[in-house]
Amino acid sequence: MPKGEKKKVVVIGVGFGGLQAIKKLSKEEDLEIIAIDKKNHHLFQPLLYQVATAVLSPADIAIPTRSLIGDKKNVTVYLGEVEKVDIQAKKVHFQGHTEDYDYLILAAGAKSGYFGNDHWKKYSIGLKSLKDALSIRTKILTSFEQAELAGDPEVAKKHLNYVIIGGGPTGVELAGSIAELSHEIVRNEFHTIDPALAKITLIEASPRLLASFAPKLSEFAKIRLEKRGVEVLTGTKVLEIDQNGVKIEGRTIPSSTVIWAAGVQANSIGATLGVPTDRMGRVMVDEFCNVEGHPEVFVIGDIANYSKGLEKPLPGVSPVAMQQGRYVASLIRGDLKSKKRKPFHYLDKGSMATIGRQDAVAQVGRFRLRGFFGWVVWLFIHIFYQVGFKNKISIFITWVWSYITFRAEARLIQDEVESNSVGSSQPN
Amino acid sequence: MPKGEKKKVVVIGVGFGGLQAIKKLSKEEDLEIIAIDKKNHHLFQPLLYQVATAVLSPADIAIPTRSLIGDKKNVTVYLGEVEKVDIQAKKVHFQGHTEDYDYLILAAGAKSGYFGNDHWKKYSIGLKSLKDALSIRTKILTSFEQAELAGDPEVAKKHLNYVIIGGGPTGVELAGSIAELSHEIVRNEFHTIDPALAKITLIEASPRLLASFAPKLSEFAKIRLEKRGVEVLTGTKVLEIDQNGVKIEGRTIPSSTVIWAAGVQANSIGATLGVPTDRMGRVMVDEFCNVEGHPEVFVIGDIANYSKGLEKPLPGVSPVAMQQGRYVASLIRGDLKSKKRKPFHYLDKGSMATIGRQDAVAQVGRFRLRGFFGWVVWLFIHIFYQVGFKNKISIFITWVWSYITFRAEARLIQDEVESNSVGSSQPN
Repeated sequence: MPKGEKKKVVVIGVGFGGLQAIKKLSKEEDLEIIAIDKKNHHLFQPLLYQVATAVLSPADIAIPTRSLIGDKKNVTVYLGEVEKVDIQAKKVHFQGHTEDYDYLILAAGAKSGYFGNDHWKKYSIGLKSLKDALSIRTKILTSFEQAELAGDPEVAKKHLNYVIIGGGPTGVELAGSIAELSHEIVRNEFHTIDPALAKITLIEASPRLLASFAPKLSEFAKIRLEKRGVEVLTGTKVLEIDQNGVKIEGRTIPSSTVIWAAGVQANSIGATLGVPTDRMGRVMVDEFCNVEGHPEVFVIGDIANYSKGLEKPLPGVSPVAMQQGRYVASLIRGDLKSKKRKPFHYLDKGSMATIGRQDAVAQVGRFRLRGFFGWVVWLFIHIFYQVGFKNKISIFITWVWSYITFRAEARLIQDEVESNSVGSSQPN
Repeated sequence: MPKGEKKKVVVIGVGFGGLQAIKKLSKEEDLEIIAIDKKNHHLFQPLLYQVATAVLSPADIAIPTRSLIGDKKNVTVYLGEVEKVDIQAKKVHFQGHTEDYDYLILAAGAKSGYFGNDHWKKYSIGLKSLKDALSIRTKILTSFEQAELAGDPEVAKKHLNYVIIGGGPTGVELAGSIAELSHEIVRNEFHTIDPALAKITLIEASPRLLASFAPKLSEFAKIRLEKRGVEVLTGTKVLEIDQNGVKIEGRTIPSSTVIWAAGVQANSIGATLGVPTDRMGRVMVDEFCNVEGHPEVFVIGDIANYSKGLEKPLPGVSPVAMQQGRYVASLIRGDLKSKKRKPFHYLDKGSMATIGRQDAVAQVGRFRLRGFFGWVVWLFIHIFYQVGFKNKISIFITWVWSYITFRAEARLIQDEVESNSVGSSQPN
């Protein structure tokens, strides 16, 4: 592809970080921007668990990347998976193509990580993509159907065991949401089984849920989840996951629906750079989000380990990625005007997690909210930060509707069953 | 399952016909109703093409079956595929289970039919289910991405060939909608290719499109489609479909995106009854929608051949199925009161098809509409007949939004691409 005087910026990944960078860079007419992503959409990951639990639809939380940035004259979007970044030759290889760059922004995010137990992947589902969310949804909805077909409560019960591993915000939100779906929402719609037979277990290795929150909020979340029928096992290490369920110290929790929300691992593109990474595969960056010795290579968001001057690396949350995205874009624009670079500073705006209807925890600095008010704040923040006006409206209406009717209208198994695929599979 | 004094009605299929029957039967407390479907949702098929062309989302046109009928005390819903109906023993076998019945309503619908050329199925996609629609969507969106990656217009062009086989309402609506998507909606969002390179071909074997409409409307639809850049080939027989594209008399139209909207075949459950069927596999029924000699077995909708006293069988359209569904429910309710059965009469309310934005044809008896007014009527009828209030709102908002912004926000490829899956596939 021809190259004139314009500097070319290649951005890998159009998640929270990449999107912010691209939006800001696109205002600079002297830049040519190439965006490469293996998804054709920008995903609002914080609400992915609501797609998994049949409240929202994929289109509510995902927007076609081209819709967002494709109409900008100086941005070219490619759908593709990057195989390798050659930081010496300044080239990105993807889908049989090669793109050279003056600047690289690597914002490829993270995937589920199993702490070296990759065989657990076979028996559990992560929650990082629309496909993951739809797999979880299908699994849960199918388990209800299997239980209904079984008829006998004792057999039915065996289908209705759900284990969520990981007590961070995703795990807590999933557990609360599955409890709501299985205990409440579908209660009147099954006749031979009682959905209240459903058993939801949330396992966390560390001593408390929501480790990044104040201990009081962790305790609050635990009590509320238990009230909603979730068994919360903190300080509990997972020893094995197999076809029978999840093995912990002293027993095995039988389950054919195991959801992994315990750990992430950086996208493996990071490793192709040949520069230092941490044990999660995150690329070590300096105070400018740069790979050491490469002021033209920026690594941001979940794929970066930014820990310069900090006790521990910045967490893998969207505000970090977004702030870094805007920051590196401003550095590149500053370069064009020969401005001196200033180090990145993260402004922590706080964290929040829902436990269920009318129930959430939130903290901003020393300010804390929980229960109903936490939930209202959570709702509006999530609508506000949602990308795209149409999605804001659509999510708002869906939430109001499901709040009034107590229904989850996205309970779609997109595929048809085939003969014997539902009834015959052995519950564990 | 225990059976008291109550008569048991088994309904196979919760499409337009089955749903109407169940709703009406459920009012009768003396009946126990078992609904079996291989999908977990009721699907508003007339808008399936809009899911395929990325305007609407699955949840806009599908409602969980349990949401619709699961809360009725005398209705039990099972997800499962029926393997066999034994009309002598009055038993239905599905998913390893057996259900006996006093009445059977077979409303299992139709699938794509290839007139004995089943190998065409491998190289074309039908449009009968959400899965089909999402496959078509992914195929079309991926072809755009492949063209963008190709860069070179000559290579790009090869990815952008779409062939639709069958000039009935589905084919016409798909062709118009793909033309809009590929020529207009994505125009500004691709940089290395011109989406106007896209070539859409609509093939119909009979002499005109929309054979069930007045010839003037057929002609109007053809002219409008051509104006929108669709090549319309009427009186053209498909000789072969393979990896290269579609072979017709004298030439092969190259395409890797071939959509089959030409023919349907009844669900194969019909054949398990061991009673007369027609060449499309439809069960022959008498004037009461009964299988001859079995007043307890009703067959309705697309799986039935109702032609008693008619020149040709009733068409496979939703009004026929809905009216038959309500009719057979009233016969069963009448039986309980020992009422004499009256034959079924179909009230033809007319037909309609959209060609694109602001353009449709409609006819009701001698009354005909076309162009903008046809389109407005089409819009409101489709919102009105949509099942579920939430879906009515959601479709209305989506349509208004996409009308104003000229965007198709459901352009989601739900899966991520894997390395080389986009760039490397050979265009034809």
